[in-house]
Amino acid sequence: MKSFASDNYSGIHPRILEAVVRANNLHEISYGDDTYTLKSNELFNRIFGDTSVLYAFNGTGANVISLKCCLQPFEAVICAETAHINADECGAPTQSTGSSLLTIKTSNGKLAPELIKPFLSRIGNVHNTQPKVISISQSTELGTVYSLKELRALADFAHDNGMYLHVDGARISNAVASLGVGLKEATVDCGVDIMSFGGTKNGLMIGEAVLVFNPELQKNAPFFQKQTAQLFSKNRFIAAQFEEMLKDDLWLEMAQHSNTMAQFLVKKLNEIPEVKITQAVDANAVFAIIPEKAIIPLQKKYRFYIWDEQTREVRWMCSFDTTEEDVIDFAETLKSLI
Amino acid sequence: MKSFASDNYSGIHPRILEAVVRANNLHEISYGDDTYTLKSNELFNRIFGDTSVLYAFNGTGANVISLKCCLQPFEAVICAETAHINADECGAPTQSTGSSLLTIKTSNGKLAPELIKPFLSRIGNVHNTQPKVISISQSTELGTVYSLKELRALADFAHDNGMYLHVDGARISNAVASLGVGLKEATVDCGVDIMSFGGTKNGLMIGEAVLVFNPELQKNAPFFQKQTAQLFSKNRFIAAQFEEMLKDDLWLEMAQHSNTMAQFLVKKLNEIPEVKITQAVDANAVFAIIPEKAIIPLQKKYRFYIWDEQTREVRWMCSFDTTEEDVIDFAETLKSLI
Amino acid sequence: MKSFASDNYSGIHPRILEAVVRANNLHEISYGDDTYTLKSNELFNRIFGDTSVLYAFNGTGANVISLKCCLQPFEAVICAETAHINADECGAPTQSTGSSLLTIKTSNGKLAPELIKPFLSRIGNVHNTQPKVISISQSTELGTVYSLKELRALADFAHDNGMYLHVDGARISNAVASLGVGLKEATVDCGVDIMSFGGTKNGLMIGEAVLVFNPELQKNAPFFQKQTAQLFSKNRFIAAQFEEMLKDDLWLEMAQHSNTMAQFLVKKLNEIPEVKITQAVDANAVFAIIPEKAIIPLQKKYRFYIWDEQTREVRWMCSFDTTEEDVIDFAETLKSLI
Amino acid sequence: MKSFASDNYSGIHPRILEAVVRANNLHEISYGDDTYTLKSNELFNRIFGDTSVLYAFNGTGANVISLKCCLQPFEAVICAETAHINADECGAPTQSTGSSLLTIKTSNGKLAPELIKPFLSRIGNVHNTQPKVISISQSTELGTVYSLKELRALADFAHDNGMYLHVDGARISNAVASLGVGLKEATVDCGVDIMSFGGTKNGLMIGEAVLVFNPELQKNAPFFQKQTAQLFSKNRFIAAQFEEMLKDDLWLEMAQHSNTMAQFLVKKLNEIPEVKITQAVDANAVFAIIPEKAIIPLQKKYRFYIWDEQTREVRWMCSFDTTEEDVIDFAETLKSLI
Repeated sequence: MKSFASDNYSGIHPRILEAVVRANNLHEISYGDDTYTLKSNELFNRIFGDTSVLYAFNGTGANVISLKCCLQPFEAVICAETAHINADECGAPTQSTGSSLLTIKTSNGKLAPELIKPFLSRIGNVHNTQPKVISISQSTELGTVYSLKELRALADFAHDNGMYLHVDGARISNAVASLGVGLKEATVDCGVDIMSFGGTKNGLMIGEAVLVFNPELQKNAPFFQKQTAQLFSKNRFIAAQFEEMLKDDLWLEMAQHSNTMAQFLVKKLNEIPEVKITQAVDANAVFAIIPEKAIIPLQKKYRFYIWDEQTREVRWMCSFDTTEEDVIDFAETLKSLI
Repeated sequence: MKSFASDNYSGIHPRILEAVVRANNLHEISYGDDTYTLKSNELFNRIFGDTSVLYAFNGTGANVISLKCCLQPFEAVICAETAHINADECGAPTQSTGSSLLTIKTSNGKLAPELIKPFLSRIGNVHNTQPKVISISQSTELGTVYSLKELRALADFAHDNGMYLHVDGARISNAVASLGVGLKEATVDCGVDIMSFGGTKNGLMIGEAVLVFNPELQKNAPFFQKQTAQLFSKNRFIAAQFEEMLKDDLWLEMAQHSNTMAQFLVKKLNEIPEVKITQAVDANAVFAIIPEKAIIPLQKKYRFYIWDEQTREVRWMCSFDTTEEDVIDFAETLKSLI
Repeated sequence: MKSFASDNYSGIHPRILEAVVRANNLHEISYGDDTYTLKSNELFNRIFGDTSVLYAFNGTGANVISLKCCLQPFEAVICAETAHINADECGAPTQSTGSSLLTIKTSNGKLAPELIKPFLSRIGNVHNTQPKVISISQSTELGTVYSLKELRALADFAHDNGMYLHVDGARISNAVASLGVGLKEATVDCGVDIMSFGGTKNGLMIGEAVLVFNPELQKNAPFFQKQTAQLFSKNRFIAAQFEEMLKDDLWLEMAQHSNTMAQFLVKKLNEIPEVKITQAVDANAVFAIIPEKAIIPLQKKYRFYIWDEQTREVRWMCSFDTTEEDVIDFAETLKSLI
Repeated sequence: MKSFASDNYSGIHPRILEAVVRANNLHEISYGDDTYTLKSNELFNRIFGDTSVLYAFNGTGANVISLKCCLQPFEAVICAETAHINADECGAPTQSTGSSLLTIKTSNGKLAPELIKPFLSRIGNVHNTQPKVISISQSTELGTVYSLKELRALADFAHDNGMYLHVDGARISNAVASLGVGLKEATVDCGVDIMSFGGTKNGLMIGEAVLVFNPELQKNAPFFQKQTAQLFSKNRFIAAQFEEMLKDDLWLEMAQHSNTMAQFLVKKLNEIPEVKITQAVDANAVFAIIPEKAIIPLQKKYRFYIWDEQTREVRWMCSFDTTEEDVIDFAETLKSLI
């Protein structure tokens, strides 16, 4: 079965799997004091500059660790209504931190200083939770990507107002591939304080990394990782995957491929006049409205999600292993159903 | 490097790793709706009878899910002072549930009704947290194993007093191998309400399972799993390991081997009069007091932990991959150092 | 100084204060086992039928106790964006329960089944927090009052969908006085599951009561009260106030007076064409838009709040001790400033 | 009825009640921006030097605010097993902060550096909660009082090891009266970082104050107060009591009286050979073992608590309103029952 449902329907890139197999070599010290974790940490520091690196099992875990590093329970997170932390994590960030999410409706999943300004009036008022983190997803849940300029504007706005900028980077590789710049240039150099670096949705079996750039957030991070049940005893098996992904830009190769497949899908869809693409296709997601009658028959062959029950907007995700043949067959199937 | 530090220093059993490799086959539905999870769930139900199965990334995650299913925040958990939930999880159970742990000092890591009775006077007193869960580890952190009779006594005592019996089964395979009975006979048939079934310490790359036997605890469990950041998008890669482990008693083969190696270690140590074994060696752990001067030199060759800084008691753990040669060389090294 | 800022700027009704003085009579058993609490509980039960009664120090405390009785941390509360629990409690309900608030924008502070329906699609989806409580304020923070029919519709909708109806009754007396029915008729008879009965904003020195009507919510309530730091050792001094307030409808007399003063204020304001009343004046609050230039000079004589910085809407609250003279002078001052 | 059960069985000192009555004078700004709170704050600052003052409704609320100011959820509190925060608050501190309590068995309710040292080995180990607060009660729950030297030793030890010293001062007046020094000398001058100043158990109707001496703990305190549901809208009625209590040492007069009555009780009990006093009577509590047969008949006339069900130790508390006649009659009743 192939699908366009999610990049987490895909499996493991062969090179990543080989790295796991290679790491299965006698005993290693547990809880991250192993040689694989050491090497992976070094690669992260070579790429991003000085950073604390903490591994997590999944995106929710990585987000919870990141937010805990930033927040007192009376402080709040500003995010888009579509943010994964708000829409897809069963309230984990709120339950784990005690903090409230202050959500903003957006058309394209992206925040901007203008949208956040109204919350500044809360600052200092003891009856209100206090805005402390601006949390964005890069790329967003709507497949859009913040430009470097947009990122810098958000980081500056955050810092000018005593807040941190957090990036949910479950798909940071797709975003950076789309921007065509370096990882550091697209993150810490823009002023990001703390972020997750996603692995699972870009060819890894399992694993996310929390990168803590801001030194004042680093000290408590290992304790939050442990208390959030995200510290892995056999961490070599996550670290070996990251090492393989980072050492010669496999992350980029996979992300570029996913993005290219999304562009190829757009091209094919443009040949079908009844299909209306609804969001900028900056990364590996395509959002569209298609004739109602085609949805269920198409889902029978290729799984995908109806994103919005009201508008009947659908979402198609491309993965590192999506092929041109998959896209062609998918588009032809859709055409035949309309 | 080989070590006697912990069963989580070991790697992956070759058959388990092959199962992971085989599961890397095109796309699967995410978040546990895949075919591997289905098969693993079926095996758990075949072995244990009707049970809800929830997968977790690590032991702390599994314990947190289990305890959340049982507890209101004003309710408390009774456990041994040595319990992993008290001693080794950085307060995760307490932070996640809001509940207090009521700890009991024991000589051998095992609870018994007599030890718990004094807490019953709290029941109904609004100034006290209310005992609701008796949590035991099987095998215990001291390498001892509850007999079926002891388990039934605890379960009956729990139920007679409106409490649940929770088992931290990070090493349940070692315990059951030691008891020489079936998994069901040693758990649900004794009255256990909810437990974790450990994988990571018994030859898996990653993965624990929470088994919810008591029907009144089943409904909320999937939400607690998700909110605790323990729901895995690519769950097939955990489920495939459990399937392999369960389908023809590989769990038992590995656990029996670890236990046998611990017994073999005891036999070799008995030849050294200066070594005093301090706990019953029921499973795969050996606790001992050895001449002080031998500790550091021995650790240089074989990693292990000093369990108790006061008494200088040390702990040696055997794993599925410990060999007779490892044990012989370890014992001879120790002998030569004394 | 007199003000129209809030009904909590007012002091204590003389009869209530006398009741406090009378209660200062030798020793009483602490933590609510005193004779005054017994009498107050009896009065609540006489008025509302079988109910558990728990006293709280303030409205936030009462709301937190109520919501804790209803919620698991993965369950959510649906409320108006203007709800006190969302807008004025510094995130206390969320921090204390771990639960998220799902807020709804309204024009008049009132919820209705149609507004809530979109949230039902979350039910059963493990990635979403699960709607479990519909929380309304009666009267609302915008001074409007739900009719009995509206209340019943919400209660039926809640129960049909496995939810509870919670009423933040910080101003329930004003609402019931406005409806012209009995307390029971306006609450438990409409299907309310749990509510707070406000004292502080209606002539008491201090004190709110949580009334737990739904028997399935009663058992845990005293533990939540205690764990929320809302159990008062010298509870006789809160209970004596409620006893005085309830025994011959002093609650109604005070609330009717506040409401009447609000109506009288409306009448006086209607004589000033530049004043635009913006909300139905159902209880003791008047919302209005007035010429910008008058706001600050008017606040110098009579404190009040600008409710909405964007629209420059202002709020005027009447209290049990607001007099006709206060209203006349206030309206004349305003007139003179325009 | 008079009793020796608890100092919270007593009522309100007449002067305190008069202060409440006087404060009931027209309107005041709510939430602590009133003139009474201003005056009370000034008095606290005059007595203790620069300090943040936050009012709370009860001792549990005050302790929770204090501990929240000091703790991340992975950090722990070291306290005596008998501490109110551990034994009498239904887990409120743990539930509210997420932090664990590390309890120490003591013979007299008092901690000392030697008892705390074993916990230092946890520091830096990510598997352990991190000791951050030493919390003591002054006077203790066993009626004993720390000397200035003992306090300074604890404060120095705390600060040398990166911890804070918190004082649960529900009975701080009794302790300071016992020490015969000034309030400042007995608290901030010894190195206390944060404390509660109890009112309810020393003649107030209601009210505790949290005094935040350590400047690094002050900033967040008002938000924790609000989020803990301890911010009182009509705070003038608590502040007026503290003002009255502080302005001419009424706190000392009441505490000295309670302490003197406890000494008088000891003197009378010493005349009964069958009564064995079990703790140093430093403040207003007397602990004793008396002939079993006398307990219930004595409780029929004078309420008191059996402190320890095992040892049958009983506790008698004296209050600001205990009289010599009460003590004489109590002792004679006891004598007649033996």
